[in-house]
Amino acid sequence: MASIKDVAKEAGVSVATVSRVMNNRGYISKETRRKVEKAMEAIDYHPNQIARALQRSQSYFIGIIVPDSNHPFFSDLIKYVEMRANEKNYKLLICNSLEDPEKEANYISMLRQNQVDGIIMCSHTMNIESYKKVTFPIVSFDRFISPNIPCVGSDNFRGGELATEHLIQSGCKRLLHISGPLDLDILSNRRRDAFVITCMKYGVAYDIIEGAHNKLTFDYFWSFITEKLSPEELHKYDGIFCSNDIVAYALYIYAQQQGLQVPEQLKIIGYDNHSFTRMLQNPKLTTIMQPSDRIGSMLTNTLIQMIEAEEDDPHVNNTTVDVTLIKGDTT
Amino acid sequence: MASIKDVAKEAGVSVATVSRVMNNRGYISKETRRKVEKAMEAIDYHPNQIARALQRSQSYFIGIIVPDSNHPFFSDLIKYVEMRANEKNYKLLICNSLEDPEKEANYISMLRQNQVDGIIMCSHTMNIESYKKVTFPIVSFDRFISPNIPCVGSDNFRGGELATEHLIQSGCKRLLHISGPLDLDILSNRRRDAFVITCMKYGVAYDIIEGAHNKLTFDYFWSFITEKLSPEELHKYDGIFCSNDIVAYALYIYAQQQGLQVPEQLKIIGYDNHSFTRMLQNPKLTTIMQPSDRIGSMLTNTLIQMIEAEEDDPHVNNTTVDVTLIKGDTT
Repeated sequence: MASIKDVAKEAGVSVATVSRVMNNRGYISKETRRKVEKAMEAIDYHPNQIARALQRSQSYFIGIIVPDSNHPFFSDLIKYVEMRANEKNYKLLICNSLEDPEKEANYISMLRQNQVDGIIMCSHTMNIESYKKVTFPIVSFDRFISPNIPCVGSDNFRGGELATEHLIQSGCKRLLHISGPLDLDILSNRRRDAFVITCMKYGVAYDIIEGAHNKLTFDYFWSFITEKLSPEELHKYDGIFCSNDIVAYALYIYAQQQGLQVPEQLKIIGYDNHSFTRMLQNPKLTTIMQPSDRIGSMLTNTLIQMIEAEEDDPHVNNTTVDVTLIKGDTT
Repeated sequence: MASIKDVAKEAGVSVATVSRVMNNRGYISKETRRKVEKAMEAIDYHPNQIARALQRSQSYFIGIIVPDSNHPFFSDLIKYVEMRANEKNYKLLICNSLEDPEKEANYISMLRQNQVDGIIMCSHTMNIESYKKVTFPIVSFDRFISPNIPCVGSDNFRGGELATEHLIQSGCKRLLHISGPLDLDILSNRRRDAFVITCMKYGVAYDIIEGAHNKLTFDYFWSFITEKLSPEELHKYDGIFCSNDIVAYALYIYAQQQGLQVPEQLKIIGYDNHSFTRMLQNPKLTTIMQPSDRIGSMLTNTLIQMIEAEEDDPHVNNTTVDVTLIKGDTT
């Protein structure tokens, strides 16, 4: 098998130079880099990154734990995390917790055993104490865990406010919010808080139905809505703010089935604007966009900043990403 | 740091037993396994899997290269591959080629350097010669590369046949097929072959528009269709078979815009039945289902069979997974 010495010989440079190219350290001219890379290819040299990881105690692996990689919001997010990680020479391991706390804990342990440099945590079924025990870099999406674990999320409060104000300014007098699951202490619950505060501020009557977890299927949300919201109750409202776009879509179909005109008799607004919503034409949903590209970049950058920090306790801040109202045909 | 000896002591078993539990080898009773796992937890023992990978020259990492992890077909597939791999203690590294041959080649090299045990190859932009040079286990999705590289795919020919026969049996007299890109030698082109042969068999007039690559966005396919199919041409056909569901959806919206009644005046059938289609209610597309759960399982099982084979040249067969017609509202 070819060695680093063979590469140096083939390229006509020193072993130290080859090593600098491989580690991306110090100044290397473009020409030298090209020469070294050409030599590696010519003699079919593939550095054993696993052996190097062991030497350096850095693996350049990062893990991402999501509830379901197939959910359109998380599949958006994974794409952008992978792209950003790849730009910085990190590889992405993907784990689906399927909202099972035991699976989530097993993944954390597996990732640790495989010497990942850090984890992006997007699944939130474990209790906070379990995360606090983890001693390597973690970044959390949409949940405050501890002061040492930075959190990246969109501005959920502002999103709830934008959605509610939009309904009120469109003339709605009787509002309903279908929230996410409120049993977990996650930042998306701020959408609900903003809904309540905005209704109170404008003196508008409101109700809340506590929602269910982020499952992928339309059928799941369809059952949820038809069970929780009888046709009589549905007719009581002229504006409904849903905590995600799939609920909003199921609600739209339900309203149509009940003979309600959207948006004339009932206005509907969702949340996410993920790939499903972006493809949907009929209707084009009014929604709040969480920019998955920027959230993905911020999660990755923050984690890599922690991994590459020289000190033990890097000062890494929480990040809040702006949200935007996307006006569609349902309001 | 705790060692394997400490685990054995804590569990009251031999080091060999702990090793058997860790390596999943030989017979271990459920009770012993539980004892050992409990001991590992009690003394906070985390085996360094990277060091073990180096000793064993097996990493239990597998890589998957897809054109776009955010495309609903591939995000379906990744979910099932990850679930199956996790059951067998393998971890999944995810790579988006974005249909760029250079990115694809870089990923293969990166995965090799990181000692992955094998690759599931779902992106097909590189020429076949480049894959043949790869000396570790590869399984290919929907493309024959070489006799040493097993291929898993759905029965594309049967899918094309089912779709075309369904249109003809529904009374269509003038058919159009919007194919995938025919420049790559991939198995999904068999859908087109089956379309042609079935039309000839039944003596039905037909045309073909050669399609574009699998991009995620609705807008991309919308531009494609409105550019390639003028309103006059659209009116010439009473049945259109689209090579994927997103084209079929864009075509449905276009037909509506042109005042055509679907399915009365124009019948439309798609291909995939991925998560987007499964959520879509308006219309429920008639389509051919490629079962991503079974394809994902077969890809993973085939790869692991190759990785774990004792011989150098394991006999691993190509696999063809059955497809099904899903009758919706568009035919």
